[in-house]
Amino acid sequence: MEHGSPPDLTGRHSPADWDVIVIGAGVAGLTTAYRLRQEKPDCRVLVLEAKDRVGGRTLSTEMQGAHGKDVWDLGGQWLGSTQHHLHWLMEELGLEKYPQYSTGKKLMLLGNRGIRSYNSSIPSMSLAALVDVHRFLTLTDRLAASVPLDDPMKSPYAKVYDGTTMDSLVRQTTWTQEARDAIEVSADIINGAPPRMMSVLYFMHYVASAGGIRNLVEAEGDANNGFRIKGGAQQISKLLVERIGQEQVLLGQPVDHIDQQEADSVTVVTAAGKAFTCRYVVVAAPIHCSTDIKYTPVKPLDRINLARLSPVGHLIKFIVTYPTAFWREDGFSGEIVSNGGKPIIEGPSSGPLHLTYDCTTSNGNPGIVGFYANGREWSHIDPDIRKQAVLDSLAEFFGSKARDPLDYCEKDWALESYNGGCPVNIMTPGAMTFHKGLRTPFDRVHWAGTETATHHVGFISGAVQSGMRAADEVLRRLEPERPPDQVLTSLDDKRDTGQGNRMWGRLLLVGGAVGAVLVTALFVKKFGLKWTPSFVRRMSKPWNI
Amino acid sequence: MEHGSPPDLTGRHSPADWDVIVIGAGVAGLTTAYRLRQEKPDCRVLVLEAKDRVGGRTLSTEMQGAHGKDVWDLGGQWLGSTQHHLHWLMEELGLEKYPQYSTGKKLMLLGNRGIRSYNSSIPSMSLAALVDVHRFLTLTDRLAASVPLDDPMKSPYAKVYDGTTMDSLVRQTTWTQEARDAIEVSADIINGAPPRMMSVLYFMHYVASAGGIRNLVEAEGDANNGFRIKGGAQQISKLLVERIGQEQVLLGQPVDHIDQQEADSVTVVTAAGKAFTCRYVVVAAPIHCSTDIKYTPVKPLDRINLARLSPVGHLIKFIVTYPTAFWREDGFSGEIVSNGGKPIIEGPSSGPLHLTYDCTTSNGNPGIVGFYANGREWSHIDPDIRKQAVLDSLAEFFGSKARDPLDYCEKDWALESYNGGCPVNIMTPGAMTFHKGLRTPFDRVHWAGTETATHHVGFISGAVQSGMRAADEVLRRLEPERPPDQVLTSLDDKRDTGQGNRMWGRLLLVGGAVGAVLVTALFVKKFGLKWTPSFVRRMSKPWNI
Repeated sequence: MEHGSPPDLTGRHSPADWDVIVIGAGVAGLTTAYRLRQEKPDCRVLVLEAKDRVGGRTLSTEMQGAHGKDVWDLGGQWLGSTQHHLHWLMEELGLEKYPQYSTGKKLMLLGNRGIRSYNSSIPSMSLAALVDVHRFLTLTDRLAASVPLDDPMKSPYAKVYDGTTMDSLVRQTTWTQEARDAIEVSADIINGAPPRMMSVLYFMHYVASAGGIRNLVEAEGDANNGFRIKGGAQQISKLLVERIGQEQVLLGQPVDHIDQQEADSVTVVTAAGKAFTCRYVVVAAPIHCSTDIKYTPVKPLDRINLARLSPVGHLIKFIVTYPTAFWREDGFSGEIVSNGGKPIIEGPSSGPLHLTYDCTTSNGNPGIVGFYANGREWSHIDPDIRKQAVLDSLAEFFGSKARDPLDYCEKDWALESYNGGCPVNIMTPGAMTFHKGLRTPFDRVHWAGTETATHHVGFISGAVQSGMRAADEVLRRLEPERPPDQVLTSLDDKRDTGQGNRMWGRLLLVGGAVGAVLVTALFVKKFGLKWTPSFVRRMSKPWNI
Repeated sequence: MEHGSPPDLTGRHSPADWDVIVIGAGVAGLTTAYRLRQEKPDCRVLVLEAKDRVGGRTLSTEMQGAHGKDVWDLGGQWLGSTQHHLHWLMEELGLEKYPQYSTGKKLMLLGNRGIRSYNSSIPSMSLAALVDVHRFLTLTDRLAASVPLDDPMKSPYAKVYDGTTMDSLVRQTTWTQEARDAIEVSADIINGAPPRMMSVLYFMHYVASAGGIRNLVEAEGDANNGFRIKGGAQQISKLLVERIGQEQVLLGQPVDHIDQQEADSVTVVTAAGKAFTCRYVVVAAPIHCSTDIKYTPVKPLDRINLARLSPVGHLIKFIVTYPTAFWREDGFSGEIVSNGGKPIIEGPSSGPLHLTYDCTTSNGNPGIVGFYANGREWSHIDPDIRKQAVLDSLAEFFGSKARDPLDYCEKDWALESYNGGCPVNIMTPGAMTFHKGLRTPFDRVHWAGTETATHHVGFISGAVQSGMRAADEVLRRLEPERPPDQVLTSLDDKRDTGQGNRMWGRLLLVGGAVGAVLVTALFVKKFGLKWTPSFVRRMSKPWNI
């Protein structure tokens, strides 16, 4: 082992080389380091990154655009106006946002009804399916509202929710195949995994952290897909490195081992055998990557079990650039929602398109961004065949001009080393039982990453919140008298889901329902009854004979 | 890297050091090596084992018994009379079985009804709970019978079964809390994980491979807990090593990397940097352990996804030896089935006992073997406190003599390196979608281990079958003209579940039902209707309006 000591910038003599080592130079890890240096300028922080680049699950790439080279995002790229943590960081870094283009007709291919277009925010579905989807979204918001953000196991039917898949919930609470298709496509896009893989409790916590289901499925207004970052999302990480100091961030240094056998320091050993000592460690990596590191002593079983039950989503994202935004000229917004339709090549069980949006840049270079349906199946296919399948499918929706792109680029996140999937770890049934292992520090090791957020889990904003929280935890161990971070507290408190307004709006619309609600409220007050979702009633009350 | 060449026993000149390298010296790996040498004596086979012992999930230990030192099993130990593959191997090795003692009263603690004893094979439950359990077992056998052993995704409602947890199935098809308790305890013991973690499809395939649910929950007659191995189960592996040749089995050699970039050989690199080349590799390890090895090129995505969705069970097993089998004298069989009851120390949510049996050896040294309820919770507790809790709990069931053991030994399998859990990998919802990744060879790498069996998955017998199958696969690649292994084929064909007899027995009992069945059969023949489980009907047929 070779010792990797830092330049002793502070003049302090500590037995450890560093105060804090952050593992992972994605948004969470770099935010941690940034906050540590911002709040305590003499804090000796080292960031170790396994890959040869910063940014984690954000990755911006230069492509040929209509007016020359421009930058598009192959990873995380969207933000919503209630994502206060990311807004705060963007302001710190001088980054700007611009709205996601959503004017014009949207296209939809669900069930066996062919391609349909619609203009409003109401999808072109049968009336029954619309009612069905609306009922399901309302149920989702209601269930999500009952899940405490910081301790989901405290929700009233936590065990039932944790033991039920989203697939079972959808099957039991919807009437139409069309609605089921729409919900399956949405879940697949939101989490990169089908509803059968996630527990109801995991998904409802995810929805609650996002401020309601509409923030996850809409692409305008307050929704989390409402805006993009000028110049690309990877800039966040690049600018953070500039602020932290280039020399504090080492690339190409996968960590092999974290040793906490010493009483007051931690030794971090890289795959190349370099050893660094520090007082605290922040592991800022997706859950499944954090388990590729060996720990001595071994990690707490809660964390081990959580990791074993948290696979990662699988998304393949593509960007196509064009000389003109011809779809806009034809009155289309660029949005397609599809179950993939019939397979257009042999192998996959459906066609490639799942969801697309207009991704014309703030410089006016037109493009379409999209995700493969069934990434797990398309991942096997030759990239050239895959590209042609995407262009042919786009042509079915937008016309033959879609076959003549300027440039094409795609990213199968599952194949990237030290990543293995996108967008986020999902949790299978039973995982949430071990939820307290998610953020609880393991001796001197703290945990960050968007999976550990309470606000906007799975988004860039969640990564920012988790980094701020981890930095605050470590700062208060370095300086026990230190009060909690006021910036973080005020951002956490800003939480405004807009859900209340929507709820009341709906209640007013249904007029007479108000009276019923009041009567029910009195009834509940008197008899202490709680609302129990019907699927919970069916599943949780044995006759007890 | 240092080259580890074998003595060239065969005089052949091959570019590879070995014909076959087997990774893992458990029953599956050693059976593979044994069959390779038995069928092709000049086959150059090397077995690499990560631990410093052979046996995998079988482990026999010497303890103090009433008549001196004797051997008990801390790992897999039971077999049933329909486990033909294990019987074949035991005959090869000259090992004998003896029946599991099951005479006398059994004890049960489920629901809030206190400890109850019963004498027959019918548990002491309320009539309603008995009917309920019986209904559920019948449903289970019926569902299991519809799952093809070699391709479970071909079962008629595979997608629904794969998307539903066992917890949801139990909640929707049972009436009484008592029955639910009994079923939860059983699942927890069978797979080391609660029903909420496994998909219906996984469990039903497991049941089908075991020849029916009664083989899994009973401890007498044909059931898989009906017999034990004289002298302990680890002897299987030790005797196999003698047959294969001690020098062909290297201990303490964890494999780090399998490189298949060469056209006609594979390089296996150990953690210590030793490199071995061979023509074929058999990885004979639990699914989660097989993923701790790096593969170049990377494993097929089916296998990766399967591993991510297959956590491992968590059992802590204990053995207590006594001067006399005092429970037998008091008319007890030694069997306890319990939901753990009230917690007797702070921390765990229930007491320690889950399931116990008499484990008096064939030499007549008395003992009780058992499993902790909630292993995941008890794993955190100090072993001394844990031991006292077990003895105190045993005293509650069998009287105060239980507090004075001769010897006590336990094994928390989750804490063993290169193991991480017991008895078997379970599959969470969505995992079975990738089931074809389980046995499909990855170029020159083949897969063994009880998880890959089609007969008696999760048992020693499944490990034997998987080793025989992997050896056969490799032999037929070494010698393309070679016919399929007749021994294996005849053992696979012996499959006799006894289910048929039970079913008819029941039909005859209900007399009049026979007529109804005939009428139904005619009806089905005419209209082509298939039986659809009610929970599937509820979950799979949208109105399609």
